[in-house]
Amino acid sequence: MRAEILSIGTELLLGYISDTNATYLARQLSAMGIDLFFVSQVGDNLERLTETLARARSRADIVITTGGLGPTEDDLTHEAICAVLGETPYVDPQLEADLRAFFAERRVTMPERNIKQAWLIPSATALPNPRGTAPGWWTERDGVVIISMPGVPSEMMRMWEREAVPRLRPYTGGLLFTRILRVYGLGESTVEERLGELTHTDNPTIATYAKQDAVDVRITAKAGSEAEARALVDDMDMRARAALGERYVFGTDQDTLPAVVLRLLEQRGETLGVMESCTGGLLASMLTDIPGSSVAFRGGIVAYATDLKAQFGVPQSILDAHGAVAVETARAMTQAARERLGASVGIGVTGVAGPDEQEGKPVGEVHIAVASDRGVRDTSQRWRGSRADIKNRAALTALNLLRLTLLDQPREG
Amino acid sequence: MRAEILSIGTELLLGYISDTNATYLARQLSAMGIDLFFVSQVGDNLERLTETLARARSRADIVITTGGLGPTEDDLTHEAICAVLGETPYVDPQLEADLRAFFAERRVTMPERNIKQAWLIPSATALPNPRGTAPGWWTERDGVVIISMPGVPSEMMRMWEREAVPRLRPYTGGLLFTRILRVYGLGESTVEERLGELTHTDNPTIATYAKQDAVDVRITAKAGSEAEARALVDDMDMRARAALGERYVFGTDQDTLPAVVLRLLEQRGETLGVMESCTGGLLASMLTDIPGSSVAFRGGIVAYATDLKAQFGVPQSILDAHGAVAVETARAMTQAARERLGASVGIGVTGVAGPDEQEGKPVGEVHIAVASDRGVRDTSQRWRGSRADIKNRAALTALNLLRLTLLDQPREG
Repeated sequence: MRAEILSIGTELLLGYISDTNATYLARQLSAMGIDLFFVSQVGDNLERLTETLARARSRADIVITTGGLGPTEDDLTHEAICAVLGETPYVDPQLEADLRAFFAERRVTMPERNIKQAWLIPSATALPNPRGTAPGWWTERDGVVIISMPGVPSEMMRMWEREAVPRLRPYTGGLLFTRILRVYGLGESTVEERLGELTHTDNPTIATYAKQDAVDVRITAKAGSEAEARALVDDMDMRARAALGERYVFGTDQDTLPAVVLRLLEQRGETLGVMESCTGGLLASMLTDIPGSSVAFRGGIVAYATDLKAQFGVPQSILDAHGAVAVETARAMTQAARERLGASVGIGVTGVAGPDEQEGKPVGEVHIAVASDRGVRDTSQRWRGSRADIKNRAALTALNLLRLTLLDQPREG
Repeated sequence: MRAEILSIGTELLLGYISDTNATYLARQLSAMGIDLFFVSQVGDNLERLTETLARARSRADIVITTGGLGPTEDDLTHEAICAVLGETPYVDPQLEADLRAFFAERRVTMPERNIKQAWLIPSATALPNPRGTAPGWWTERDGVVIISMPGVPSEMMRMWEREAVPRLRPYTGGLLFTRILRVYGLGESTVEERLGELTHTDNPTIATYAKQDAVDVRITAKAGSEAEARALVDDMDMRARAALGERYVFGTDQDTLPAVVLRLLEQRGETLGVMESCTGGLLASMLTDIPGSSVAFRGGIVAYATDLKAQFGVPQSILDAHGAVAVETARAMTQAARERLGASVGIGVTGVAGPDEQEGKPVGEVHIAVASDRGVRDTSQRWRGSRADIKNRAALTALNLLRLTLLDQPREG
């Protein structure tokens, strides 16, 4: 089964936007076991569009287009499909009624040029688009399917997931179920090494992706029913966790480290305060990105200038003895954070984000500590990378250390 | 003059990465007045790559490829060029010497398969790549140019700017000079409206782009020499600033608001402390993203829980009278920040990032104040958008208010 993607719109060829639709669809096709050999970007030009579409039809079983479904003269995707198939469009009464209802609901007069968004041809079925005015088409002729979808990513993704994927089931030979295990604390190559033989299975398939905030292990199974596919994924999930080490898997699918940590704090009735220097507010900002974070997160102190560490409660004797960048200082910062911020749990982060060394400590040296009533844990690291990389890894490693600490502590009640 | 882009690599077709190289090159070509009609992504497959390259050569004057220049069997771009042109590669002694020197400097033995990175053909000139081991090729035959560059964005961009653009000068009929004016505080449509007639000129051209941290106004001029092109840009720069209002333009090219603000603080011998609640650490994190920020930035307090505002110096009477989300509270936060953080200038930010309203104040209501010895300024806003959008706009607006305050204050000395 071969697919080809056409991304349509002059704005792509002017570099105004990146073709993230193609990336999304490429990933989806890969997970479905459908080969993708070509992606083409074409402008809003009927001749070039028709030429490219005809070529795609000649070498693929499924052609997926995004863009060019708007109401203006520049929107030519359905015109190109008509030209390639030699079919003449007509206004479909049901689509026209839906379209007029869409405008009526919004108390806007429908511009008459929008009527072409109610077009249909004999070989096409309309794909509904409740997020916009442009329906897609599922066009099937001569053994080749053309799926035409809008270019707006949110409209396209909904249409793909709800309308296209179910219709593609006969082509992929079953139903797919995917789960992502999110891993922190192991590099991608170590994850692959630990998964070993598991990565060579056919169904489920298992693949790793390094993300900025985790290594993702994507498990995808294909089966006759969702329950069967899910059972295959569940089994592989168990084996993958055993191979990786259960504690490295911090969540699944959309989970993020700050969200997981906030959930654990809430479940245990704990509150959090942070004192950070080299992460410079990033740790607090990651936590407050999560809706509802105010339940467990009390606040933070960004003690960037060294004298502020003392000002906010780090004993001067510790700073004198060990300096600002030291594990002892990170440990003292956790206690200061708990006291000054009135939190049951504290995090302290200190280090050298660069570009220059500090107190003779090299760029990338970072000390992190977590404290609660049950004691203090710490970790010291030396990372390479840019200032942004070091800030990011330090904040995530702090969250992960807190996660592991909380896991060892029973829930309330 | 027509160009076509080929982005080469199976990782694109699996959706592991987005084709940002094509977006970058598309923008560059557009600014140079070169038409781009097609972009194609192709995997690491010699047959498909050769087919696509041959087609591109048949319909474009300039074919630009990225990717496929590595040393492995999967890297096939130069093989495809050889196949299309019917030329046989040889190992170029100078390229081989450079390659071996690259490895020797890093005290690494060169794997013998890397030798193909020293290949050349009669129609090609090598394009140096000091950031990596893969040189590019400038290949010219039958009136068509092929520019092959590495896929790593930093290597590609350097090669494009330093090696390809100068060689393209005869094709673009002159030399280009570009400057970006970075604008904060006006929406993109207002920027376009104010620029008015200026956007309709041919040389320089002027175009606007909405970015996450600013609206960019890109001015590009073409002339016989750099001095002439620069003079054209200078003139348009002056007219654009006059049309926009000088104070809305916070910088040029790579400038960011936090970097500009830190520079202004340093020039005036001021130091900064921030107290933030709804931005949750993002304001401090934006500032500490800038290397050297520790010169002027002392630190921050993330007073997320309301009682922490009082704990860190906001008078309880103000909180009782106006609540946590109020302009009076933002003003009091600036004074608390100055005192507690030992800074000459303070910022206070309080508001409702959502998803729920707070104290009866709606999501998106944000109050920002800036204080120095010369007094306090504030602004109150009501934004729509996601939690992340509101955090981002609040932090940027705080930085911009500080910028305007500092501009009204003379430099030291």
